[in-house]
Amino acid sequence: MSALLGAIEAGGTKFVCAVGTGPDDVRAIRRIRTTTPQETLKAAVDFFLERPRLPEAVGIGSFGPVDLHLDSHHYGHITTTPKAGWAYTDFVRYIEQAIDRPVRFDTDVNVAALGEYAWGAGRDCSVLLYLSVGTGIGGGVIVNGTPVHGQTHPEMGHLSLPRAAEDDFAGCCPYHGDCLEGLAAGPAIAKRWGRAPESLPEDHPAWALEAHYLGLTITNLILAFSPERVILGGGIMDQQHLFGRIRAEVHNRLNGYVSPLTDRNVLNGYIVPSALGTRVGVLGAMRLAQSAL
Amino acid sequence: MSALLGAIEAGGTKFVCAVGTGPDDVRAIRRIRTTTPQETLKAAVDFFLERPRLPEAVGIGSFGPVDLHLDSHHYGHITTTPKAGWAYTDFVRYIEQAIDRPVRFDTDVNVAALGEYAWGAGRDCSVLLYLSVGTGIGGGVIVNGTPVHGQTHPEMGHLSLPRAAEDDFAGCCPYHGDCLEGLAAGPAIAKRWGRAPESLPEDHPAWALEAHYLGLTITNLILAFSPERVILGGGIMDQQHLFGRIRAEVHNRLNGYVSPLTDRNVLNGYIVPSALGTRVGVLGAMRLAQSAL
Repeated sequence: MSALLGAIEAGGTKFVCAVGTGPDDVRAIRRIRTTTPQETLKAAVDFFLERPRLPEAVGIGSFGPVDLHLDSHHYGHITTTPKAGWAYTDFVRYIEQAIDRPVRFDTDVNVAALGEYAWGAGRDCSVLLYLSVGTGIGGGVIVNGTPVHGQTHPEMGHLSLPRAAEDDFAGCCPYHGDCLEGLAAGPAIAKRWGRAPESLPEDHPAWALEAHYLGLTITNLILAFSPERVILGGGIMDQQHLFGRIRAEVHNRLNGYVSPLTDRNVLNGYIVPSALGTRVGVLGAMRLAQSAL
Repeated sequence: MSALLGAIEAGGTKFVCAVGTGPDDVRAIRRIRTTTPQETLKAAVDFFLERPRLPEAVGIGSFGPVDLHLDSHHYGHITTTPKAGWAYTDFVRYIEQAIDRPVRFDTDVNVAALGEYAWGAGRDCSVLLYLSVGTGIGGGVIVNGTPVHGQTHPEMGHLSLPRAAEDDFAGCCPYHGDCLEGLAAGPAIAKRWGRAPESLPEDHPAWALEAHYLGLTITNLILAFSPERVILGGGIMDQQHLFGRIRAEVHNRLNGYVSPLTDRNVLNGYIVPSALGTRVGVLGAMRLAQSAL
């Protein structure tokens, strides 16, 4: 019998908690609005305590930045977040003490990448990139089945890019102005065009520019660490028409330099949507819990 | 007793072959000018055959692009290189058949990264970046002791960067014009300023611009996959004064975003020169040979 696993997808606007044994056996799921850490973490714990049986381990995929170094004083904390009240929240210890089960902790995007690696569009990829494009932009990396941490954890939202010739938007990142997130996340699209991204029609120039910046970014990431597949998720990627445009941009930019990717058909299977869709975060957290057993 | 290991550092202008058991016990070393594949590979094999004892395995770090997929038809080949006569050279099979010992094969920069991980400035780093800045620019990545391959292999020379405001040099990459290599490799410096890089004094504006582009690149690579250390090698990095300038650039660009790297003292031990120096390629190849045993 498979182990009962607990999962927390911790986002800045909502938490999603679930218990189950895998993607085909999610036994309960609950959405919780993110308010104060005290209120939100208590609601997450209550969800697990109200179930007939406690999970054998809990996985957490969290917004960040987070501290993932097991030997650090701040391991398991959300660290320097600007989100009011959440800086230096000791997430892991709170859950461990309340549930008394092993807890595993990682970034929201590393956990999403892990979910896709185990159960989605990235199975058997020795090097996997998951990039989320929504209210923010963030990326996770799996190498040989394990999320990459390194010095902190992969980040990817704040990459510096060459500007498109026709683009004079100042960008809206409070740290860097016109980094990737400042140019291409949802709020940047809204500010640049004065309209909510989801209200922009497919033929609006916003989308050609979006595909340009995402294609440029993905090309750089391919050259940097050679993922075997690139999975794109997040609210902006609900615009399915972006995929073809991003592949075309990557194809043009690589300009024949990386040989298997010179084939457009290869690119169709190489830059793909999340297979787990809106459940990618919580299922990834469930998979992370499994690694504790 | 340690195993006798064979090493080939295969460059576009010279090959370096060695036998030994490690960095403190290099028993013989030979430089061979790179001419045709037939002549050059035969000279490399002759070096090993002339020794009193054959090595138990041979490691090769090669210029590229190379095919590292064990299940590929072209595994062990140098593939689409523009270097005359070398495209689709079956490097591994030639050495295996001539020496009759296990052969391991990787990129020159992955092998350099492996050497630094095993015996140099990158010991115990779970994620390690080695960047070589010379006639070309290339990078290698080690994750948990193993060189990253993924879809092809990390590359890093052809990254797209924002241009410095004052810089109108067109760049000299035949594929991309003003990619990193087209802006900042040795030939780009020579073409931009009309002088050999090694003849430019420390206070020449060439070096401030070089540090700007390398600092920008390293910042992007930190954000992309979070190396625990960044080791810089290659002929351009013989300019020791570049290290302080590159660290300052990375510090300014991160702008407090990645917390441990906000400390300048941390950066001094984080962006560092190759500890193996000019022997990094051939020693890395020796370490790669060890992985075959």
